[in-house]
Amino acid sequence: MVKLEKLYKIKDLDIIKNKKGNLFKGLSSSDLNYQGFGEIYFTSVNLNSIKAWKFHKKMTLNLIVLYGMVRFVFAKKLPGNQNEYLFNSIYLTHKNKQILTIPPKVWFGFKGVRYKNSLITNVANIKHKDIEVVKKSLKYIKFDWSK
Amino acid sequence: MVKLEKLYKIKDLDIIKNKKGNLFKGLSSSDLNYQGFGEIYFTSVNLNSIKAWKFHKKMTLNLIVLYGMVRFVFAKKLPGNQNEYLFNSIYLTHKNKQILTIPPKVWFGFKGVRYKNSLITNVANIKHKDIEVVKKSLKYIKFDWSK
Repeated sequence: MVKLEKLYKIKDLDIIKNKKGNLFKGLSSSDLNYQGFGEIYFTSVNLNSIKAWKFHKKMTLNLIVLYGMVRFVFAKKLPGNQNEYLFNSIYLTHKNKQILTIPPKVWFGFKGVRYKNSLITNVANIKHKDIEVVKKSLKYIKFDWSK
Repeated sequence: MVKLEKLYKIKDLDIIKNKKGNLFKGLSSSDLNYQGFGEIYFTSVNLNSIKAWKFHKKMTLNLIVLYGMVRFVFAKKLPGNQNEYLFNSIYLTHKNKQILTIPPKVWFGFKGVRYKNSLITNVANIKHKDIEVVKKSLKYIKFDWSK
């Protein structure tokens, strides 16, 4: 069995406590995972909805779950086999404040879990371009999202 | 009476509707209000808590209310008068998705309204530095936040 390296990076956010309301740091231009700034956008995902699959040719995504709980799944084709994949999966919530870095050339998708809506932000290193992203339907890569 | 120009800029965010959950655009490197990327951070403000006053010498802030409702107040000293200010005020909520640009050299503060906690993100054009920001107590500029 091929051992799969982690297809993503995860980092705890620095939190500055304040009795009027805490502050937490997202991404800084001096961070090791900073690869430039293209745009920031926000995407919500409804409970049990799955947004998959996507594959970026160039974009590095820096994702933070701002509200709710989201399951992220990453997929990589096994060498020499057209239809078999190895998978990574991670759950993120707004309670454990972390930033998830997804490098280019990784298939990924995500599902809203437990909350009616979850909110994610992406600080992307380049602007969105249709030619830069490959989108496939959920059936394109078989994965049991219910487990 | 001196007429006060708007001390801030406001812009509606582009929304891309999706039945699995909408996407909305925050800030892009090609936007007119884009002044570079220093860092992104998130600040929460509890109901009725007031975070004021702050004055940035160099930082341009791009603020989005991601959850809840926040009242922002801006203050500018009247010319020739040490202790009199003119004020701008605006309420933002996550429901009317907008980005608020605060240029440097404006006094401002904000208050959590209606929700137990409100969450704001700031996409700042430079990294935070203690020498770049002037912080004063709430009493420094007299303003009736209860009105």
